[in-house]
Amino acid sequence: MTGTTEAGSVGVTTTQAVRLFTAESPLVLATGAELGPVDVAYETYGTLNADASNAVYICHALTGDAHAAGWHEGDKRPGWWDNLIGPGKPLDTNRFFVICSNLIGGCRGSTGPSSPNPATGRAYGLDFPLLDMSDFVAVHRALLASLGIGRLLIALGGSLGGMQVLQWSLEHPEDIAHAAIVAASSRLTAQNIAFSAVARRAIMDDPQFNGGQYAIRGTNPDVGLSIARMMAHITYLSEDAFTEKFGRSPQGETSRRGFGIDFAVESYLDHQGQVFLERFDALSYLYLTRVMDYFDPFSRPDALTGLAASPVRYLVLSFDTDWRFSTEHSLRIVRHLETARQPITFRELRSPYGHDSFLLDDPTYHATLRAWFDRALEVGT
Amino acid sequence: MTGTTEAGSVGVTTTQAVRLFTAESPLVLATGAELGPVDVAYETYGTLNADASNAVYICHALTGDAHAAGWHEGDKRPGWWDNLIGPGKPLDTNRFFVICSNLIGGCRGSTGPSSPNPATGRAYGLDFPLLDMSDFVAVHRALLASLGIGRLLIALGGSLGGMQVLQWSLEHPEDIAHAAIVAASSRLTAQNIAFSAVARRAIMDDPQFNGGQYAIRGTNPDVGLSIARMMAHITYLSEDAFTEKFGRSPQGETSRRGFGIDFAVESYLDHQGQVFLERFDALSYLYLTRVMDYFDPFSRPDALTGLAASPVRYLVLSFDTDWRFSTEHSLRIVRHLETARQPITFRELRSPYGHDSFLLDDPTYHATLRAWFDRALEVGT
Repeated sequence: MTGTTEAGSVGVTTTQAVRLFTAESPLVLATGAELGPVDVAYETYGTLNADASNAVYICHALTGDAHAAGWHEGDKRPGWWDNLIGPGKPLDTNRFFVICSNLIGGCRGSTGPSSPNPATGRAYGLDFPLLDMSDFVAVHRALLASLGIGRLLIALGGSLGGMQVLQWSLEHPEDIAHAAIVAASSRLTAQNIAFSAVARRAIMDDPQFNGGQYAIRGTNPDVGLSIARMMAHITYLSEDAFTEKFGRSPQGETSRRGFGIDFAVESYLDHQGQVFLERFDALSYLYLTRVMDYFDPFSRPDALTGLAASPVRYLVLSFDTDWRFSTEHSLRIVRHLETARQPITFRELRSPYGHDSFLLDDPTYHATLRAWFDRALEVGT
Repeated sequence: MTGTTEAGSVGVTTTQAVRLFTAESPLVLATGAELGPVDVAYETYGTLNADASNAVYICHALTGDAHAAGWHEGDKRPGWWDNLIGPGKPLDTNRFFVICSNLIGGCRGSTGPSSPNPATGRAYGLDFPLLDMSDFVAVHRALLASLGIGRLLIALGGSLGGMQVLQWSLEHPEDIAHAAIVAASSRLTAQNIAFSAVARRAIMDDPQFNGGQYAIRGTNPDVGLSIARMMAHITYLSEDAFTEKFGRSPQGETSRRGFGIDFAVESYLDHQGQVFLERFDALSYLYLTRVMDYFDPFSRPDALTGLAASPVRYLVLSFDTDWRFSTEHSLRIVRHLETARQPITFRELRSPYGHDSFLLDDPTYHATLRAWFDRALEVGT
């Protein structure tokens, strides 16, 4: 133990909430609509240094939340990116100050479509305004300001999180010294949109959806939301990973032919669909997926202009078996950024696990991130 | 026009029905359960020659039916494989006698789970017996016998149809001189099963499914069945085909952001989901997909023994962009058949359209089939 730090846990963490916008001083959205109040749930790990130069912002994926690391009282599992964040881990909380917040439009402490609408006193439902990726960025920036942080050492995100990092770096490059975009996309394909469209249909066509006012009706579109989640999980794993994990094995000792759960893969999907209902809101699923569908920052002719004055050091990572956002998606991001002459490190990493790889503790992946984070600390803000 | 025949239509066709098994003389299924009466809907095109040596059996895919070619009175579209079957077409009805029947378990004229159960007078529902690929073969054979045909010149099928051809050729190789298996599989992967499992859940969890007794309750699981169909259509096209056909284009002249149908791909899926409700039954979807899940003929140690005495000339075709049943599925079939020293022609064809390619009028594909059909006619039964 001579000077080294063992990889460890950040310990017990709690999610805090802060009101960043009020009804009187609302958030002005990209559409021009106004939203207030806006509460944001967040967690932090580590200590902000004296010149606030060690701040790392974690942007979560579609169904993530603010609880990225450590343990909540009574929880059976740590935060969703606990393998990455903690003492001695790649995002070493002895050196970095890490912030993670729940997205607006979400359902884990930040204001979203199931929050009360001050105009009616009941949930917004589908009266919640349509969001844009830049609205997420605006809220992240407001949280940073409230924490007294002017510029990030690193912004990091996977999947939808990477899309936020990209948008942020294009819109406010002066905020970010180093931007890490993992398993993400700058533009969903028709097939990507198709999967999300069918998921939304399953939710909205569920009779218990009740036009989005399910809470007040005492219903919940459990069938639609679990179908959406099961379908999404098919896209999160590679075909080979499905074969390796489940193959054609029965769930029980022997096959019980019929229409119940027989194959192990059916049991897995059923489980994923059911546990999702305990932690996620159907309206949030609609709003957050639609932000992804419409995201297309490089379609704006002025997308890259800010980067000339404030270059950002980018890390772009993809996984070779990711068929949700294949390497081609990452390469499209790289090609655009190259035209703006940004310093970019790009890697396609090998992993058998498909899109889910960005959440896993793969040695090469984590070594790549660790080296890049360490270099960011050397270069500074 | 000196001696050539222009590719043409078989003209107006009608679906016939025949009772192949009765309550007194039922079909004994692979499980040992008995099913009767069993009616089968079928169509034929062309003329059976004097020695019954020009018969071709078409096995349809999951949602196909007996109406493979020609036009029904009042129809806007011809049969589902009309581009292949007709005077001068690859399956030239001036030379071949073509038979296509609706699968049992189906809903287009053959006995299925929504047919009346003689024991109760109402639809079988989930009391319909579980089927096996070999049950399809048994019924096809009974139809052949009723038509006075002892041996087929060709058995041909795509996707689930190809799986029937494979099963038939293994179980009764003496029935088939030439077997063409297109875009099929001998064993679904966990990912394949996953897609079907989620589709079935969408149907069975639809409150209008009513445990399968929806007809008598005056309901129909339209939401679940359309979700199943939309999801299936995602797997029928390649990602590139989705991009080429739809890209990110809006359905209307301009994008109307919101949760309605905005992208063209959403309109396509919605349309596919809706039109499917007019022609397909939710219970049939359950029964036929489950036959595919459990299909695994080469897992039987004696699978290949019949072929030693009665070799079958095989054609196995795949399409390079088919990700529902990729070329690997076809190659697995080829490898197994090679161990039984069968004469096999295998081709991976290029097509941008994914699994759907087997239904399309691709010149190379049709030329490959035509040459192989012509050769079969020369070789004979």
